[in-house]
Amino acid sequence: MNTSVPTSPYAPLQNDTFIRACLRQATDYTPVWLMRQAGRYLPEYRATRAKAGSFMGLATNTDYATEVTLQPLERFPLDAAILFSDILTIPDAMGLGLSFALGEGPKFAHAVRDEAAVAKLAVPDMDKLRYVFDAVTSIRKALNGRVPLIGFSGSPWTLACYMVEGAGSDDYRAVKTMLYSRPDLMHKMLQINADSVAQYLNAQIEAGAQAVMIFDSWGGVLADGAFQEFSLAYTARVLAQVKKEHNGVRIPSIVFTKGGGPWLEEMGQLNCDVLGLDWTVNLAKARALVGHSKALQGNIDPNVLFANPAQIEAEVAKVLNSFGTPHSGAGTGPTHIFNLGHGINQHTPPDNVAVLVQAVHAQSRKLRV
Amino acid sequence: MNTSVPTSPYAPLQNDTFIRACLRQATDYTPVWLMRQAGRYLPEYRATRAKAGSFMGLATNTDYATEVTLQPLERFPLDAAILFSDILTIPDAMGLGLSFALGEGPKFAHAVRDEAAVAKLAVPDMDKLRYVFDAVTSIRKALNGRVPLIGFSGSPWTLACYMVEGAGSDDYRAVKTMLYSRPDLMHKMLQINADSVAQYLNAQIEAGAQAVMIFDSWGGVLADGAFQEFSLAYTARVLAQVKKEHNGVRIPSIVFTKGGGPWLEEMGQLNCDVLGLDWTVNLAKARALVGHSKALQGNIDPNVLFANPAQIEAEVAKVLNSFGTPHSGAGTGPTHIFNLGHGINQHTPPDNVAVLVQAVHAQSRKLRV
Repeated sequence: MNTSVPTSPYAPLQNDTFIRACLRQATDYTPVWLMRQAGRYLPEYRATRAKAGSFMGLATNTDYATEVTLQPLERFPLDAAILFSDILTIPDAMGLGLSFALGEGPKFAHAVRDEAAVAKLAVPDMDKLRYVFDAVTSIRKALNGRVPLIGFSGSPWTLACYMVEGAGSDDYRAVKTMLYSRPDLMHKMLQINADSVAQYLNAQIEAGAQAVMIFDSWGGVLADGAFQEFSLAYTARVLAQVKKEHNGVRIPSIVFTKGGGPWLEEMGQLNCDVLGLDWTVNLAKARALVGHSKALQGNIDPNVLFANPAQIEAEVAKVLNSFGTPHSGAGTGPTHIFNLGHGINQHTPPDNVAVLVQAVHAQSRKLRV
Repeated sequence: MNTSVPTSPYAPLQNDTFIRACLRQATDYTPVWLMRQAGRYLPEYRATRAKAGSFMGLATNTDYATEVTLQPLERFPLDAAILFSDILTIPDAMGLGLSFALGEGPKFAHAVRDEAAVAKLAVPDMDKLRYVFDAVTSIRKALNGRVPLIGFSGSPWTLACYMVEGAGSDDYRAVKTMLYSRPDLMHKMLQINADSVAQYLNAQIEAGAQAVMIFDSWGGVLADGAFQEFSLAYTARVLAQVKKEHNGVRIPSIVFTKGGGPWLEEMGQLNCDVLGLDWTVNLAKARALVGHSKALQGNIDPNVLFANPAQIEAEVAKVLNSFGTPHSGAGTGPTHIFNLGHGINQHTPPDNVAVLVQAVHAQSRKLRV
């Protein structure tokens, strides 16, 4: 028995294309996975969701979470799985009282609006999030080495948006009012959020996540200057604490800021491996700006999936060609991970997803010869 | 009588700071106006709105439209007025049946979803929009030369979003489905929209508008590539037809694309005088990219107006300093028109608007010495 190499309780990885691309290493084709790939557009997801009774009933049950995470992999040859969970588990564990009313978005019973509410905030006991880590381990086992498993969290700023607004918002008035009028409170909340996110992601890594992603879904609503101070700085604080490897294996980290195009150069300085991009970003420009240090993930418009197969294939070609030929050979260089620019729409025809995945694989192989 | 100079029925302009800044000419201070400056945050607006009975009752009545357009000027020393009207007057004149349900956004009775519906579209008879042009003339007279009057229209793409969706949308699924699956129909609609917008703006200019602005409110939801093909190209088609002068007087044109930051260089090629910018854009970078040919308008986050006076002043300073010292002396050079990065929030305290306007004027004078 070789005691110098830590033993893993999991099966060896059979498809490491996604991990290699994250680390800017050459791959035979461009790996692809889709944000929200386990979700309402799949009838089998809706069936499991019905059994679970509610969204959080689904997310907090290890078996159900495992089942829905693997569903898209049964249909499509995706190159990664992503933990099925909610973005708001951390504030829920902080005691803010998360609920999902039918047909509406998430709501918190206790929005964080003033100094007293901020004073009560603390990094939650990670035991309250045990159901997430259990799901990670269960999914990792069920994957059996088929593809890597991505863990995730909302960014400190994105969590703060929900914590202050108490629900979704279209103008972010409450959270921005606090930001501009009580920056001290906002900074305090963001520090707590950042340290919480770091602990949360590390616990996911220990539970079996092979890569981690930070979703800064609302970073793009901030003004230039405010983004750097209130979102980017706290994403950096998370990354400074997140494990870069586990049991001797590198754990790539991905940062996705919806609407983050204006700050790509600054995001290029982050201590992460991959930048996720939305569809407004030109991949050739992004590659020129940050491709020397980061893999790029993205960025087709999810609404392309409502077109016909030939049109989907043509749009896939545009995105692949916009990035251009990825790095090949030894060492590291610019690489691309294909994805949507945002989550898949619930009305998407599943057959069109099959067309997209197949097109990415087939076309990207040709891009390399 | 000097017959070589066309006579104007209007009083001479007393404050031409805004027009000069549009034309990249030196001014003593940075002019300021606010998108949606006539609106619900003003109690006097709400009173007129109540008298009118409905939003379109307000917009279609010349006296009311004049009254609300001038209301913010009575409170604040703004450097421009903007026509009070709706962005959807053109599709309404096309026969799509605009209505505003209480507490909801605009709705069209006849959304344009298929080939038959597109085939029925045509540039509307401008007589159906007579109420808009009458309002322009009435406002111009009532202003009596105090400040210039800006006319406006939605962009061809932004109008198409509403025409296809039939209402507001959070995912633009219907309009993007048409764009990706029936680009021929989308191009046809956009051509009709562009020619309609051009006629509409020209009629506003003839009625007395001293500058015109195109609001591409939804351009930023498009993917890179699609923006250029389906939004920018049709904004350019409008600009190619819009009068650059009237009765020997230059009429500046402004293009504002919310979320247009990624395409600033390409927008710098437009045949317009001013680019409006949202708050995600760094003004120093924008000036370096396009300041050699365009004046810049924007871009403070409207939520800054929920902070206290000292904080508002500090945020105004950040925006002014981000642009830097404007052109001074003879000839033309980089200039800045202060504005919000989007419409003012309906919950804004009016006193805070006074603080902002005063801060822009006072601080920007110092920036010049």
